[in-house]
Amino acid sequence: MADPDHPLAALAGTWRGGGVGEYPTIDTFDYTEELVIAPVPGRPIAHWRATTRDAEGAPRHAESGFLRAVTGGVELVVAHVFGVVETAAGTLAADHLTLDSLAVVGTVTAKPIESVSRRYELDGDVLRYTIAMAAVGQPLTHHLRAELHRT
Amino acid sequence: MADPDHPLAALAGTWRGGGVGEYPTIDTFDYTEELVIAPVPGRPIAHWRATTRDAEGAPRHAESGFLRAVTGGVELVVAHVFGVVETAAGTLAADHLTLDSLAVVGTVTAKPIESVSRRYELDGDVLRYTIAMAAVGQPLTHHLRAELHRT
Repeated sequence: MADPDHPLAALAGTWRGGGVGEYPTIDTFDYTEELVIAPVPGRPIAHWRATTRDAEGAPRHAESGFLRAVTGGVELVVAHVFGVVETAAGTLAADHLTLDSLAVVGTVTAKPIESVSRRYELDGDVLRYTIAMAAVGQPLTHHLRAELHRT
Repeated sequence: MADPDHPLAALAGTWRGGGVGEYPTIDTFDYTEELVIAPVPGRPIAHWRATTRDAEGAPRHAESGFLRAVTGGVELVVAHVFGVVETAAGTLAADHLTLDSLAVVGTVTAKPIESVSRRYELDGDVLRYTIAMAAVGQPLTHHLRAELHRT
């Protein structure tokens, strides 16, 4: 069990659910997701691993990294499976987590992402989020909306 | 079991062992490591997760991301637990994997890393590596040497 005194304890768990993705340049799609947030005992950090699947169950997105509780807020450092890494900073409160990208850098084969903005709403064992993204020449635009349940 | 035809199949497994770390700015230290390289079926990518512990068994370093087989080589996108993300590119051959960082970006709380150079030598179920790093004002300098065994 997670330590209740860990600074990231409220988010600890394996969260499963589904959502809808859209973007001006692609067709709208449904997806399922598993998000694991695993605090590291004794350190103000948590592993952060998300994987999504399309309606047929095939792997779609994956991201993997660390959430860090720091003075005045939180940081996320994460690698995206399509060849991009992201640093982000934001705030964690009893009922929400917000994260706005500081730097988004891709390999030469990755599609260009300029920025990512994440809003997570925490309601007991329910986590709802929206993610907006500026990418492939589009300004910051709504991209993902999902509802996950702690399992 | 891993698909033997996956482009990253040679690296698949859970690798465990130990090594020695050194750097001009710190005391030399021993560590143990677990490195998981898990190819994703049907896609030319693998999850890449490493965790190390100090001689007393306390968590020390962790990194998490993806290795990608791309035209002409491989790419690594990885988040480091201390607040840094890295993109790297290199080559994979039957007996070695090399990766040199393209971009290393930290959050405002992270110690500054300028570049990372990784050399892995694959000998059956033994993986030996050296990692050099330019950081905290030092030029590219040897940092880590370890030997891991596939378990």
